[in-house]
Amino acid sequence: MDFSSFLTSLGTSCVIFVILMLIFAWLSKKPGNAVVYYPNRILKGLDPWDGGSRTRNPFAWIHEAISASEQDVISMCGLDTAVYFVFMGTVLGILVLSSIVLLPVLLPVAATDDSVKSTSATTSKGTFSDFDELSMGNIKEKSPRFWAFLIAVYWVSFITYYLLWKAYTHVSGLRANALMSPEVKPEQFAILVRDIPPVLQGQTRKEHVDSYFETIYPETFYKSMVVTDNKEVNKIWKELEGYKKKLAHAEAIYGQSKTTRKPEGARPTNRTGFLGLFGEKVDSLEYYRGKIHELIPKLESEQKITLREKQQDAALVFFTNRVTAASAAQCLHAQMVDKWTVTDAPEPHQLIWTNLKIKFFQRQLRQHVVYFVVALAILFYMIPIGFISAFTTLDNLKKLLPFIKPIVNVKALKTVLEAFLPQLALIIFLALLPKFLLLLSKAEGIPSVSHAVRAASGKYFYFTVLNVFIGVTVGGTLFTTFKTIEDDPNSIVTVLANGLPGNATFFLTYVALKFFIGYGLELSRIVPLIIYHLKRKYLCKTEAELKAAWFPGDLRYGTRVPGDMLIVTIVLCYSVIAPLILPFGVAYFGLGWLILRNQALKVYVPSYESYGRMWPHMHKRILASLMLYQVTMFGYFEAKKFVCAPLLIPLPILSLIFGYVCSQKFYRSFRDTALEVACHVLQKSPNMDQVFRSFIPPSLRSEKNDGDLFEDALSEQVSRV
Amino acid sequence: MDFSSFLTSLGTSCVIFVILMLIFAWLSKKPGNAVVYYPNRILKGLDPWDGGSRTRNPFAWIHEAISASEQDVISMCGLDTAVYFVFMGTVLGILVLSSIVLLPVLLPVAATDDSVKSTSATTSKGTFSDFDELSMGNIKEKSPRFWAFLIAVYWVSFITYYLLWKAYTHVSGLRANALMSPEVKPEQFAILVRDIPPVLQGQTRKEHVDSYFETIYPETFYKSMVVTDNKEVNKIWKELEGYKKKLAHAEAIYGQSKTTRKPEGARPTNRTGFLGLFGEKVDSLEYYRGKIHELIPKLESEQKITLREKQQDAALVFFTNRVTAASAAQCLHAQMVDKWTVTDAPEPHQLIWTNLKIKFFQRQLRQHVVYFVVALAILFYMIPIGFISAFTTLDNLKKLLPFIKPIVNVKALKTVLEAFLPQLALIIFLALLPKFLLLLSKAEGIPSVSHAVRAASGKYFYFTVLNVFIGVTVGGTLFTTFKTIEDDPNSIVTVLANGLPGNATFFLTYVALKFFIGYGLELSRIVPLIIYHLKRKYLCKTEAELKAAWFPGDLRYGTRVPGDMLIVTIVLCYSVIAPLILPFGVAYFGLGWLILRNQALKVYVPSYESYGRMWPHMHKRILASLMLYQVTMFGYFEAKKFVCAPLLIPLPILSLIFGYVCSQKFYRSFRDTALEVACHVLQKSPNMDQVFRSFIPPSLRSEKNDGDLFEDALSEQVSRV
Repeated sequence: MDFSSFLTSLGTSCVIFVILMLIFAWLSKKPGNAVVYYPNRILKGLDPWDGGSRTRNPFAWIHEAISASEQDVISMCGLDTAVYFVFMGTVLGILVLSSIVLLPVLLPVAATDDSVKSTSATTSKGTFSDFDELSMGNIKEKSPRFWAFLIAVYWVSFITYYLLWKAYTHVSGLRANALMSPEVKPEQFAILVRDIPPVLQGQTRKEHVDSYFETIYPETFYKSMVVTDNKEVNKIWKELEGYKKKLAHAEAIYGQSKTTRKPEGARPTNRTGFLGLFGEKVDSLEYYRGKIHELIPKLESEQKITLREKQQDAALVFFTNRVTAASAAQCLHAQMVDKWTVTDAPEPHQLIWTNLKIKFFQRQLRQHVVYFVVALAILFYMIPIGFISAFTTLDNLKKLLPFIKPIVNVKALKTVLEAFLPQLALIIFLALLPKFLLLLSKAEGIPSVSHAVRAASGKYFYFTVLNVFIGVTVGGTLFTTFKTIEDDPNSIVTVLANGLPGNATFFLTYVALKFFIGYGLELSRIVPLIIYHLKRKYLCKTEAELKAAWFPGDLRYGTRVPGDMLIVTIVLCYSVIAPLILPFGVAYFGLGWLILRNQALKVYVPSYESYGRMWPHMHKRILASLMLYQVTMFGYFEAKKFVCAPLLIPLPILSLIFGYVCSQKFYRSFRDTALEVACHVLQKSPNMDQVFRSFIPPSLRSEKNDGDLFEDALSEQVSRV
Repeated sequence: MDFSSFLTSLGTSCVIFVILMLIFAWLSKKPGNAVVYYPNRILKGLDPWDGGSRTRNPFAWIHEAISASEQDVISMCGLDTAVYFVFMGTVLGILVLSSIVLLPVLLPVAATDDSVKSTSATTSKGTFSDFDELSMGNIKEKSPRFWAFLIAVYWVSFITYYLLWKAYTHVSGLRANALMSPEVKPEQFAILVRDIPPVLQGQTRKEHVDSYFETIYPETFYKSMVVTDNKEVNKIWKELEGYKKKLAHAEAIYGQSKTTRKPEGARPTNRTGFLGLFGEKVDSLEYYRGKIHELIPKLESEQKITLREKQQDAALVFFTNRVTAASAAQCLHAQMVDKWTVTDAPEPHQLIWTNLKIKFFQRQLRQHVVYFVVALAILFYMIPIGFISAFTTLDNLKKLLPFIKPIVNVKALKTVLEAFLPQLALIIFLALLPKFLLLLSKAEGIPSVSHAVRAASGKYFYFTVLNVFIGVTVGGTLFTTFKTIEDDPNSIVTVLANGLPGNATFFLTYVALKFFIGYGLELSRIVPLIIYHLKRKYLCKTEAELKAAWFPGDLRYGTRVPGDMLIVTIVLCYSVIAPLILPFGVAYFGLGWLILRNQALKVYVPSYESYGRMWPHMHKRILASLMLYQVTMFGYFEAKKFVCAPLLIPLPILSLIFGYVCSQKFYRSFRDTALEVACHVLQKSPNMDQVFRSFIPPSLRSEKNDGDLFEDALSEQVSRV
């Protein structure tokens, strides 16, 4: 890709971004779109436009996003989101502080050394562009100018250590504050117990669990809830809920028809067969009512069977105070470590009930199998990625898909396509992965959704960094260099270092595309807007259906973070080689911070809260990127035959020590709840019955909740409490 | 060493052993020696000869040792000792079960293949002996007879897995039983808190600690004891105790002189200068009384100063019940993990007070520095070990020490010396190490003696196995093979495998020497007996001095286990190569089990109790020896060019998995106390004041214990308790 094509891509992206911004400013003012642009505020019962001034400055959202405090973010979108902004802010800080020193120092140092250009202009086969003049590649081998670049590596590293340390301290404080909140949160009073040993003769599972925990916690044990196999009951419940929705929909149609056509209305009909397209035609209202009438007793009897006969060897145990629950979740209960294993309970709605019954060693086995599968996938995805970056050049596409020839031959379009195609292919390809990885993570036997998301996020990170970054960098020269690596495994660093400069523009374009188009689409919410309006017009009849149409979902930081981490890795690794990438990195994280802050405050609704447990992963991965950068730089300096390159060897060691110290100082408080935090007083004494009931899954909730339903699996309240 | 020299060494050792046994049978019956042969029974207030039958069978102790139950051992000598017997029993089981299969199968298979002998009799330079005929070296390369040996490796491995699993389950049960004992043990009600953050303005350290733990444990917190810097007060106290002992000694002499010489007696005198040899001559009674009179107020004022001004940032915290203490010792208390770190308290007398103040990261740093020093020592001790095994041949000694020539030239003596010298040198050399390693372990900042002993024991194990076993094996050929290893690091296994057969007789002699002489001396207790009688005759005047003269000390399993592990490693590694070593291994552990059981029941007094925490280390090390054996066998089969050698590769992997599963299933219950164990009811409610006072170090104990002394560092009893 040459320099002009790079500028075109940059210009186009920028224009698209400005257009999307304007669209946002225009559309977000329309009252009908409020539910798309301000759903979080609406759900929280706030006025969408804060004071009702719809006619205000179209860029007021920027001011609002900047002036919103961290506490605002936490109260609007939860701690996890606030931690995500700490992550973005930290990376932004690293890049800004690096830019301040690196840009004014390194660019002149590189630009004034013309040696390479003059001597190798003919050998570089035309790929040597104006852009390269500002990079480290412009400096001739063994030049003392490398000292400036070497010191720059140290500067970037120390900036990173300093900001990461500050951020870890800050997030640790945030987590402590959230955990010591005076509000009653059900998950703080419960623990999850798994691997319960077989029940003794003449005892129910409930009695077994109750007696075990009553002996250990005679004063603070409240109740237990034995986990059941809910597959059947969930199926019936879902069917019932489906019919209830359909009935509401049919009633709405019937009501509408009364007002529009004739006063007695037209009773809606449907067919009973496959997808409502075949079979007998019946009156919908009657049919659905009949089905519901039929299913309710079926559900009730299934609930009873489930609670009585489908008990699993896992349970939720409730305590009357937070300290005991926090302490019980950390302690070893049974002499055999694989029995009565405890963990802190996640929020009720993020429990993965089907995973709770999986046994201790089976979980470990599953985890190792999943790791193995992911490692295989990472190793062998490099091959398709290599093919993608080779095939998605225009010339190749023209050969493969002759029908696109006429389109491609338009000159302007050709330049744009040439600039975007490889990156687009990469982005689409990567979009397919997260679902697969989340599936794999859930298969590990992880008990909560947030934990599974974290696990998937980690896999995704290694996937992107190893495959995209290293794959693309080394990919071009992979087959030729494969022999070199085989002969001398240490040369992988050199190969990586040699591959870096050639791909600088590719990654620059990738970063630019991601922030202009990605964040432009994010802010303008064009896709959800269109979907919402289509649904509203043609499908939705009831209020509930309408709400489902505009419900925004959460920020999905699980997939955002690996994407961001890829940018961090790219920008860090190029920061010294081609410092010009730094402003792009700053723009990516600056724009991202601004736009996502707006989205967090106004759009997204968090679907779970893990009290910032994602942070240690983010921290570790920024550090991993930094180490990759340090090692690569060592290889690059070596390749440039700079004699003082070994001076970089202490840096990766320092990073390891820094990571070790951080994990020793902070990590455990992210895994467990510190007791000094849990012992803070509550606003009011907790309603234990409510805490207990919040953990009952919806499919087991009974309308006539007279208590006798729960006598089997859900233990009775201890009399003296 | 040739075969006759081996037989001589064996015969001599056996004769010495029989003589020592007879000496024991004769001496142990004399009433005057009871305190040497039955001190443990005497200290426990039992009759030395159980029923008073002094005239019984001299070998009755064998029957007593065998018939004593595990519970007897625990009650007489503590759980740690019982666990040591489980270790010996397990190893014995492994060796016996291996012998049963390996001896009748492998010996005929090896002996009937004469190929090597016939073809290489001339090339083996006379080192090929009758003994080698029964070993794997006798089988020619690529022979299908290796199948028998390969299956034997599998048999030994599976026997080991099975018995180790059984032993781990058993020890885990023993530990649980000991921890749920209904007796009140002070350490079960206390936790050790370190890294206490700086005290807030206007608060004492005691208030700080008290308020922190009272908030978290409002109902079960009892008291706290702030750790102080006792260096000064200990010095004064030791001086005072020394003078008290000297006074008692002088009074006894004075009393004696009254009865023997004249009725008014001769007042003993001493000199005040260096070692009592120089300086002014004074009346001892007067002088010591004056000194004591002088020191008592000094001690009291120093106690006050220590308690008030020398408080450190560590404390012991006491709880009114065992479950809370067990749970508090496992929980994270502070949001910053390096503050308020908790561990379970060890027994009061094994606390290392000087280590308690060391900070979190300093402990980690110290640990890593110590590991580094030990690793260096292990690496560079190989060189002196190599020299020792080269120099301690008689010919070399004669050259170096010409004056021993006449002794050495006596033929019988020469044979004996030739057989023993290298082994003796090795044993003496190894005896110097443990002290040094214990010192290093204490420098790590470990808070309890038993933990330091475990850490030292681990270092000693790696030392012995790496240096003695691998050093001696590879040593002879080290300098010639060093080049090979440098060229191809994988060849270390081959070098080891090639070195093994040549050293078989060396190790056989080593094992035989260790059990005949070592256990013979152990049982007969000749050295302590002589020392005791000398002291009694010339030094001891008071009862206390006499008791100190015969006090037996503990079993010292910390140094025994690495020694035993060396034997295990040797016997395992040779078990298939030269199965004839197995009976020697069986004899070592059989005799050891028997004789040490006698010693445990009658002689040694445990100096601390760690509730079997040594077991996971023993387990891990047996497994490490097994893996070394498996890897070495693979190398040996490869060296013998047996095509199916790769069939051994699954074994080390299986060992790793086995070790992982064991540590997952059992290990945590050895680190922490399981709550289901701690919640067992006590015989009587604990006297908390007594529990608290048992942790006050002797130098801080006050005779007029009116409480006001403790108001500073030792917190007041909480009023409501």
